[in-house]
Parts: sequence; C-alpha cells; structure tokens
Amino acid sequence: MRRFKKVAIIGVGLIGGSIGLAIKKRKAAGKVIGIFRRRRTLRKALGRKAVDIGVMDIAEGVKDADLIIIGSPVSSIPALVARAAKFAKPGAVITDVGSTKAYIVARAEKLLGGSRVNFVGSHPMAGSEKTGVESARGDLLEGSPCIVTRTKNTGRADLSGVTSFWRSLGANVKVMSPAEHDEAVSLVSHLPHIVAFSLAGAVPPDALEYAAEGFKDTTRVASSDPELWADILLTNKSNILKAAGLFKKRYGAIVSAISRDDRRRVIKELAAAGRKREIFLNRLHGNKKA
Amino acid sequence: MRRFKKVAIIGVGLIGGSIGLAIKKRKAAGKVIGIFRRRRTLRKALGRKAVDIGVMDIAEGVKDADLIIIGSPVSSIPALVARAAKFAKPGAVITDVGSTKAYIVARAEKLLGGSRVNFVGSHPMAGSEKTGVESARGDLLEGSPCIVTRTKNTGRADLSGVTSFWRSLGANVKVMSPAEHDEAVSLVSHLPHIVAFSLAGAVPPDALEYAAEGFKDTTRVASSDPELWADILLTNKSNILKAAGLFKKRYGAIVSAISRDDRRRVIKELAAAGRKREIFLNRLHGNKKA
Repeated sequence: MRRFKKVAIIGVGLIGGSIGLAIKKRKAAGKVIGIFRRRRTLRKALGRKAVDIGVMDIAEGVKDADLIIIGSPVSSIPALVARAAKFAKPGAVITDVGSTKAYIVARAEKLLGGSRVNFVGSHPMAGSEKTGVESARGDLLEGSPCIVTRTKNTGRADLSGVTSFWRSLGANVKVMSPAEHDEAVSLVSHLPHIVAFSLAGAVPPDALEYAAEGFKDTTRVASSDPELWADILLTNKSNILKAAGLFKKRYGAIVSAISRDDRRRVIKELAAAGRKREIFLNRLHGNKKA
Repeated sequence: MRRFKKVAIIGVGLIGGSIGLAIKKRKAAGKVIGIFRRRRTLRKALGRKAVDIGVMDIAEGVKDADLIIIGSPVSSIPALVARAAKFAKPGAVITDVGSTKAYIVARAEKLLGGSRVNFVGSHPMAGSEKTGVESARGDLLEGSPCIVTRTKNTGRADLSGVTSFWRSLGANVKVMSPAEHDEAVSLVSHLPHIVAFSLAGAVPPDALEYAAEGFKDTTRVASSDPELWADILLTNKSNILKAAGLFKKRYGAIVSAISRDDRRRVIKELAAAGRKREIFLNRLHGNKKA
C-alpha cells in the first residue's frame, strides 16, 4: 500500500481546506502544500492552518507532491489536471473532489494518456451550501461517503493509495466506475438540489414571511453556488433526466391523490417515503458509527 | 386585554407539551391542565412537568379553563371542539394548533354557533418531524411564526386574548383570515412536505447508501406522520394544487434547461432560487432577534 508524503491541494475552499485540516489533524501526510489563485485566500488558509505552505504558482506547488488534489469546481478540473501533470514528478497521482465523475475522468485520462502521472477520480460527499476555507472543518469528511472511481486505466497501487488516503481522513470509501458514481449521485445529491432550487424558486416572496424550519431545511441546498451547480448538473445530464423522471412520478402520484381526495393513496405514498428515509437514517448512523 | 388564568390542553404531544412547558417557563398562566387519552402519555407529561395536572376526562379537564387549546391532529379537531364546548364554562375560549384553518374554523364556528363558548383558530408554526411529549421543548415557539385567524364571528376580546397568549410564549404572531392562512402555508409548509415526500419516495433503496447531508435535510420532513399529513394536505386541497403548479413550473424550467444544455438559463434559475432563500433567511433572523 502506498502512502503519500507530500500532498498538494489546488483550490483550497470548503472541501480543499477541510482536507488540509483533516490531513494535519490525523497526520495523514507529512506536508500539505496549498496552491492559490488569490493572495487573500492564501492568507486565510494559512491563518486557519489548513495548509503548511501556500504558493500562487502551480508548477512550484506540485513539483514535489506525491498526491495532487484538485479541489476546484467541476468545469475547471480537466484544465487543472493538464496543468498539474505538466509539472508533477513521475509517479505522482492526481485526484479531484468533483461531483460528477464520467465527464472529469474521461477527460483526465485522455489528457494524461502516455504520461507518467496518473489520475484517480474521487468524490468526497461532504459538501455544504457554504463555500470558502473559512467554513472548512477538520472533521467534515468523517463518516461521510467518499466515492473513488476505477476504470480500465486505473493503476492498482494508485487506486489503493487514494482509497487509503481518504480512509485515513475518516471517510467511508466506496470504489465504483464513473458511470455508477454518476447514476448514484444523480439520485441522492443532484436531484435533491434540483428539487430544493425549484422549491425556493417557486414560493412568492410575500409568502416567505411565514416560512419556518420545514422550508429552511428543505431548501438548504438551494443556497449553493449557482455556477458551480449548473456545471455539475450539465455534466451529468442523462442520469439527471432519469432521476427527474422518478421524482416526477412520485410527485404526480401524491398531487393526483390529493386532487381525487384519495386519502388511502396519499397515506400510502407518504408512508412509503417515510420508510425510505428510515432506511437512509439507519445506514447513515451505521456508517457514522463504523 | 384578557389574560387566561387556567389553560387546558387537549392532546399533549410535541406541540401541546411544548406549549405547557412554555407557559410554565414564562408564567404565562396560573395553571396548566393536560387532558389525555392514554395513561402512559399522562405520566410522561407529568414527568416532564409539561402540565400541572393531568386528567383522562375532557369534562373534568375543561370545566374551569379560561383557554382550551386543542393540540391534536387536524381531522380530530372539530369533534374535540364540540366536546370541549359542551363542558366548558361560559366565556371560555377554545383555540387549536391545526395546520389548516379554513376547514377547522368553519366547522368550529358552525358547531359553536349560539353557544357561550368562543373559538379562535391558531397555528403555531413550530412543528418538527418528531412527535410526542418526549420531544417537547419550552422554547419551541420562541421566534416562530404563529398565525391567529380572524373571521366575522371572532370576538375582539377573544382575538386579543389569544394573540397576547401566543406572544407571551415568544411567538411571532400574525392575524389573518383562515383563507389567507391556508394559501400562505400551502406554499411555505405543505408544498415543501409534498416535495420532500416525493423525493424520499423517488430514490431507489440501493442509492440511499450514498446519500449524505443534502439528502438528509431536503427530506427531513418526509419523516413526518403520514396520517396526520394526509389530513393536512386533503383539507387544503385547492391551495395545494395551486402551489404544486408553481413548483412544477420552476422544476420543469430547470430540467428542461438541463436537457437543452442551456447553461445560462440553468444558472438564472438557480440564482433566482438562491436569492429567494436569502430573503427568507434575512426575515427569519430578523424575526428571531425581534
């Protein structure tokens, strides 16, 4: 099993910063180098001790790194993979934290074909509607699902290195293909975002005065960054359209049962939904304990 | 302004129990009598000191009460209003905590027509997906919206007594007609429930393994009681069908923009939703502070 000595993080926001804090908290690597576009973020990250060293230049930041983590938004990842690979040492592994994987992994593997730098896709599912290193937390990944992707091009040592790395930060790692990942997250993450955005968008401003905790939680993720999420949704289109169909079926069934005054059917739909959530909560608690 | 000395609570669950705890915490009435159907709940409520006295008989419980609060589910409220009124003293005021008001207020006023007991509808919007006096909290109503309804039959002193009562428990009281109430809650409470139930119901059990915080919050209210919620939804049908139409429009716009790869439109929809949620959060914080 491979252990990474130096880890470089490109894009030290909520996730990248939380990874840095977790590495240092758990001594999961010898050194964390943060690579920044803005000096203000660099200072904030150093102030929070999310990285040991902060640099503004990718070449300088990645040159000694054993593991390079791209913590930036989905649409920027392929270009950063190419740029990091150009300056990385032979044998270095690049991974990412992007919320869609087929799009990113296909591009990254094409870009790195024939290179001595390797790519393994990751998706630590521990986000929040918050952004920025100021919201980073060293325990953000603890007990959270983290999906690592395997393709026919994935090296065995690289895969085990990346999975061990995320496990060492407390994440609950699963390995699957990029396509399997994208299908799963379209249902449990992308669809909830679309639903929350639709709900917040649907309510007239005047009615918001009477909104309380139910509305607050149901729409929490509608405060997520619009550009970031547009790119996530657009890079997982076919799965999302399927997931949207499943939602529309249940939504239509409930609304139609209400319109027909079919109390028995309404109860049946609501009870089935409650049982699904019960399964989810039991798994979540099991994982958090494990 | 009228102040109530003895308050009887019929149905001491999450809301009824929280009202009892709040009355005692804030000395908002001299005595709280709980009226129970089950001895086990009576013992629990006394154990939590949510009531001063617990009885199993409505006649006995309401006979000296100045204010009678019906804390039971929507569908049971009209019958309990009739029963409480039969044994209440002249001039007593009955209110409720039901999530729909047109249905309840119309029936209650019809039942009490010509009687010397008066009804004023209330809806403290401070629920939770939890149930039972064991989840009751003395601060549940603090800073939460509480809608009190006024109709042509509502007595001025009764209305001011009921609004002052809720204010004395820390609620943020608004007075409106039952129809206005039902329209507002169809948007900010009933629609979010339908959406959350639909979402939890739509996701295949296998995918739940990868669900995380986003799914958890977006579906929280899908753990609400199915029978209770079926009755709420069915007694507010016409407003809910209108609210469901507003949701479907936004949902359709987002899904269609994704399917057309219309990034600009996706961003526009998501950003508009985020701004709505910002308005909501600002109002919520303003109210909590006030």
